[in-house]
Amino acid sequence: MIPGMPPDSVPGRPALVALDWGTSTLRGYLLDAAGAAIDTRHAALGILRVADGDFEAALERFCGDWFAASPSIPLLASGMIGSRQGWREAAYVPCPASVDELGRRLLRFETGRGRQVAIVPGVVREGDVPDVMRGEETQIAGALGADGAGRFVLPGTHSKWASVADGAITAFRTFMTGELFAVLVQHSILGRLMEGDAADIGAFARGVAFGLAEGGLGGKLFSARTLGLFGRVPGAGLHDYLSGLLIGAEIADARGGDDASGMADGRAVTLIGDPALAARYRDALAIAGVAAEIADEQVTPRGLLRIARAAGLVG
Amino acid sequence: MIPGMPPDSVPGRPALVALDWGTSTLRGYLLDAAGAAIDTRHAALGILRVADGDFEAALERFCGDWFAASPSIPLLASGMIGSRQGWREAAYVPCPASVDELGRRLLRFETGRGRQVAIVPGVVREGDVPDVMRGEETQIAGALGADGAGRFVLPGTHSKWASVADGAITAFRTFMTGELFAVLVQHSILGRLMEGDAADIGAFARGVAFGLAEGGLGGKLFSARTLGLFGRVPGAGLHDYLSGLLIGAEIADARGGDDASGMADGRAVTLIGDPALAARYRDALAIAGVAAEIADEQVTPRGLLRIARAAGLVG
Repeated sequence: MIPGMPPDSVPGRPALVALDWGTSTLRGYLLDAAGAAIDTRHAALGILRVADGDFEAALERFCGDWFAASPSIPLLASGMIGSRQGWREAAYVPCPASVDELGRRLLRFETGRGRQVAIVPGVVREGDVPDVMRGEETQIAGALGADGAGRFVLPGTHSKWASVADGAITAFRTFMTGELFAVLVQHSILGRLMEGDAADIGAFARGVAFGLAEGGLGGKLFSARTLGLFGRVPGAGLHDYLSGLLIGAEIADARGGDDASGMADGRAVTLIGDPALAARYRDALAIAGVAAEIADEQVTPRGLLRIARAAGLVG
Repeated sequence: MIPGMPPDSVPGRPALVALDWGTSTLRGYLLDAAGAAIDTRHAALGILRVADGDFEAALERFCGDWFAASPSIPLLASGMIGSRQGWREAAYVPCPASVDELGRRLLRFETGRGRQVAIVPGVVREGDVPDVMRGEETQIAGALGADGAGRFVLPGTHSKWASVADGAITAFRTFMTGELFAVLVQHSILGRLMEGDAADIGAFARGVAFGLAEGGLGGKLFSARTLGLFGRVPGAGLHDYLSGLLIGAEIADARGGDDASGMADGRAVTLIGDPALAARYRDALAIAGVAAEIADEQVTPRGLLRIARAAGLVG
């Protein structure tokens, strides 16, 4: 221990159990006060996989050893663990939602074993048709630069496009692109002409271009059948064609919409998420003339640490 | 027999076996030369249900008695029977496709039993991204008024919006609305909050309005989840909300697109198809400020007769 420093701020000394607790997977990071990972692990203990909803037992099984070594260490979790289907529901924070505000609105409780648990709330964009995120607010908090501003795109099952200013998420929109792609490939007529899912850059780019073109998505989907029927996109390329089409349509919609996504001016964006998917979006954004950088993969533990600091959980 | 009239033009005397032979269902009409139905029947003998692809056996089973009574009667079929997966492929006719042109381009052949079979070709709209119809051209031929012009909407699994001028289909577009609705209800997260499929006019109208609003479909779909999560549309109404949303987005896209659908000027349309679905589209079109009438249910046999006449199959 370094004299004069609080015990939890010693480099290499555990200061926070940071959990990214989603629908299918639980990822854990044992962090020191500077955010260095002392230990990391993951398990198929997402909220839908926890037997009988016994989240406390799942937690002990997952990282009981971390608590055994540091009995009073704080725990902060983000993601679907704070949803109605999770451990306890953490009420949504309305936009604009800053890191400080997220820290103030943590849901805190003590487990039967006396663990101090805190859960990051999701964020809601109010309006006639509200929109919600849960987990992405923490990734954005971890990706924010010193200017506390930017446009963030989080591709996935339910892609999020978010605008951040003055350190706060000011607006965002959700696109069901990933889920739409999956159900169309697996359950619609569009999957029938597809021959495998090998990469086909040309077919992907063609799909992006048509997705970006004027007109709505519903009137473009059938092209993934007709281009196959007429042999203009080979069967082996239809998978990537549809992927490009959906991503292109998402980009067109996000850019053309109201200011909710903040994309109308075409400024550069930061992509957060799975590296392969982020690279796919970067390529599509390049076709749309939008520069994009891909955030590193440590945004979630970094975001959890920043929120934990804002909440005073970590010194 | 009336002296001086050709035998097949006697009222009540069989002049045409008209078949609407689709993917799942085969509908047959024994028509006299004026188009009156002497007999009608249907069976689950769609092209995907014909064992071993033995279409001749299916035909004999379905209406062998009609041929027995009138051995030389002509047969005209429309629909997926002329597709690659059907009996024989009838090549697409490019737009503009008139009734006369469809009649000239019939695919004709003789069966092993000596039946003279003719199949109506589908129609293709050429372009970078072609579009196709097969069966709908016959329905449109049957719905056409004396002016030989109009805008036709054929809702269904793959909705078609078609413009007709001078008796010819000049352009059309396909929207995968019906299939999209089915896969989203059955296989996506949007179906999970739905409680039944009872009619909810208010939820339907709300969905139509949001579907018509600015912005693409992909960014609107998630509303069918958030409005349910926030209790702003009851679980029992989410089914109709999503239906309205998809139909509204289809209308917005068809109206806002290039001239392919010919809808940009908002003129009245004729709806062709299942009465309940057509009524649903009429209600949605009314919200969009577009007048619509629903065609009667005899458009397919009437279209087959008109094409048969153009081809000289019927006097």
